[in-house]
Amino acid sequence: MKLAFSLASPFARKVRIAAIELGLSDKIEFVPTKAIPVTENEEYARNVSPLRKIPALILDNGQVIVDSYVIVEYLDELAGGKLIPASGPAKWQAKTDHSIIQGMQDALLLCRYEKMLRPEQYRWPEWFDDQFKRAWDGLARFEAHPDVLTRPLDVVQIGIVCILGYLDFRFPDCGWRKTFPKHAAFHEKMMQRESVKSTVPPPA
Amino acid sequence: MKLAFSLASPFARKVRIAAIELGLSDKIEFVPTKAIPVTENEEYARNVSPLRKIPALILDNGQVIVDSYVIVEYLDELAGGKLIPASGPAKWQAKTDHSIIQGMQDALLLCRYEKMLRPEQYRWPEWFDDQFKRAWDGLARFEAHPDVLTRPLDVVQIGIVCILGYLDFRFPDCGWRKTFPKHAAFHEKMMQRESVKSTVPPPA
Repeated sequence: MKLAFSLASPFARKVRIAAIELGLSDKIEFVPTKAIPVTENEEYARNVSPLRKIPALILDNGQVIVDSYVIVEYLDELAGGKLIPASGPAKWQAKTDHSIIQGMQDALLLCRYEKMLRPEQYRWPEWFDDQFKRAWDGLARFEAHPDVLTRPLDVVQIGIVCILGYLDFRFPDCGWRKTFPKHAAFHEKMMQRESVKSTVPPPA
Repeated sequence: MKLAFSLASPFARKVRIAAIELGLSDKIEFVPTKAIPVTENEEYARNVSPLRKIPALILDNGQVIVDSYVIVEYLDELAGGKLIPASGPAKWQAKTDHSIIQGMQDALLLCRYEKMLRPEQYRWPEWFDDQFKRAWDGLARFEAHPDVLTRPLDVVQIGIVCILGYLDFRFPDCGWRKTFPKHAAFHEKMMQRESVKSTVPPPA
């Protein structure tokens, strides 16, 4: 199978970490792919996803799987179910936590586009602040329920580490370590994993 | 259980249609809730979701479930699994199709914010066009694979009907019926269901 990805994408990083942790990364061909709003990419839109987002997993029979969470679910099922609880309240909590993380990451990407992609005269500071606050409030939520950060590795922790890495990558002065010390300790611990360390985005 | 929703939200409509189709709507208290970017909503952010998005399902034990797809998954499991295939390629196809629909709906919401919420001087036409094209290309994708539109009711069809209803609601002049005649026939057929008919957004 093939994974359309980029080194900078936090959504693709989540899949890459999961694939390594599940022992599946040598079954995947990683295909560098560009996905930038307001930039044409007709071939990708037609053959992979009309959303023109990465990552996408392309199976050997041609079936395409998106989005990043569904790809992790797919890989996790292949590997016997290690990163997502199979049933009960823990399953719904993990799915909910992950949906919140996905929304936080989406919000940070909108911040990035607002600050860097959008022509300067069209930037709306209140929009940036509102989106950034969603991610920040999300971190505050997990900081107040730190069991999420200390339990065995799961898709939620992988998602959080990708957000923290994205903040270092795109918003290096935001000061998340100072405001969220439990996340700082969590990030330091996670960075000891080869899967996390080897997927840090390259210098911006 | 309670559902935080609004009559205008296409994401909440998906859950409302699913709840009716699954025979669960009389077990849910529907709580009208506002969720508008750049508008404060600290109580909701603290108690329900830091993303300040609707819908959210609040269980009787206080557990919160987001987002709209996870809520439908939860209700579907309660009802014995009618709207999402349980296993195999059909499961991954349905999840992928739904992820694409979710992205199309997200893109249309960004279009709405660009056109109506953002102060006029900060609007960037290329952004609007790019986001709108994602939704349009998504419809073209399903128009070219119309089996999605004719099989028994599932979460993908519910998502599509919510997108079409949202286009009528917010972009009434876009002409989707003319460009996508198979979707027009599908929408007409779906509107015969009480679940779909009773959840059409009120006049804008």
